Amino acid sequence: MDLISALNWRYATKRMNGEKVPQEKIENILESVRLSASSIGLQPYNVIVVEDPAVKEKIKAVANNQPQIAEASHLLIFAAWDTLTEEKIDNYINLTASTRNMPVESLSTIKGYLSAILKNTPEQNFNWMARQAYIAFGTAITAAALEQVDATPMEGFNGPALDELLGLSERGLKSVTILTLGYRDTTTDWLAPMKKVRYPKEELFVNITDSDLKEAV
Amino acid sequence: MDLISALNWRYATKRMNGEKVPQEKIENILESVRLSASSIGLQPYNVIVVEDPAVKEKIKAVANNQPQIAEASHLLIFAAWDTLTEEKIDNYINLTASTRNMPVESLSTIKGYLSAILKNTPEQNFNWMARQAYIAFGTAITAAALEQVDATPMEGFNGPALDELLGLSERGLKSVTILTLGYRDTTTDWLAPMKKVRYPKEELFVNITDSDLKEAV
Repeated sequence: MDLISALNWRYATKRMNGEKVPQEKIENILESVRLSASSIGLQPYNVIVVEDPAVKEKIKAVANNQPQIAEASHLLIFAAWDTLTEEKIDNYINLTASTRNMPVESLSTIKGYLSAILKNTPEQNFNWMARQAYIAFGTAITAAALEQVDATPMEGFNGPALDELLGLSERGLKSVTILTLGYRDTTTDWLAPMKKVRYPKEELFVNITDSDLKEAV
Repeated sequence: MDLISALNWRYATKRMNGEKVPQEKIENILESVRLSASSIGLQPYNVIVVEDPAVKEKIKAVANNQPQIAEASHLLIFAAWDTLTEEKIDNYINLTASTRNMPVESLSTIKGYLSAILKNTPEQNFNWMARQAYIAFGTAITAAALEQVDATPMEGFNGPALDELLGLSERGLKSVTILTLGYRDTTTDWLAPMKKVRYPKEELFVNITDSDLKEAV
């Protein structure tokens, strides 16, 4: 299926039917996350993968009891690093050096960019890291659609309670968003038959030319 | 090309060759943005499309003179709404009602969710709207790769200067990120021959089962 058809096919699934997603499709969706773009390539987040029904039930309890959490095959929890540290930057620099077979010293420009970011406030850095996680989240939503796997992108959960439940702060992480993966239950999902709502392209996109800039002066 | 191959093929292109991207490919990338997932479907952002060389030169000047900005075929500037307003919420509710041919009154649940968000601080709301723009950004990066169009996701620019240049605050917008679209110049781009650096999956993904939770207690 081409991308546009896949994106038209997908929707934020409200009820799923409990069917398992084949492991190969899960692996492809995860690999798309691993290959996601990220500023300076840092990928300052982890993704928690949950398949265990008991854990899904507990997550459901801190996420407004949304039924698709338990009905999903897998949950992906996108969790940004809670703090950017010198150690994490060095780990990435070392990975780059070993992947590209070059000395760490030759990466001083990248290291300089990352060290400059480190000087921002913890809150600025967390917001930036969360945004990087959202690039991966957008990639995963697209990948699931291409695999014809239904998904619910979810922000409606109690973040601190979820972090506590999963022990995320011990891992230096803070949850930012959830993606359920599974298959729509068209008999119970009220949203399944609804038309997708999108702004017309004339409203979403703005073409700017040099004459627009001159008019503004 | 399948998604994993496309994501392996793509990289943050540092030099482009000035070749134009066919309009059909641009339209597909923009349509993928229009169809992107977004919390409650609101899509609280616009995307500025720039093809005019004179505008690209001016943008380059406020973006550390990165050459691929002028060498690109098109630039997409993702700009979140600077303020969430009742009016914008009502516009979306009206669009939903007309698309689905249902009375506005029947959308009181969605309206309630959006009105609750409206009560957050302006800064919280801006961060939330920026994250929504990043979902679309992630989708666009993926779409470009599938179209075999090179792209540079860019955060390294002077946001206030760019907003001033493009008159974005008059439009109620604030730029959050740029995506160049074009074709790599393999003769000048130092990054083109480099290996992609990614964490191994064992480092990026964390499987959590119920026994992990019990251990933590």
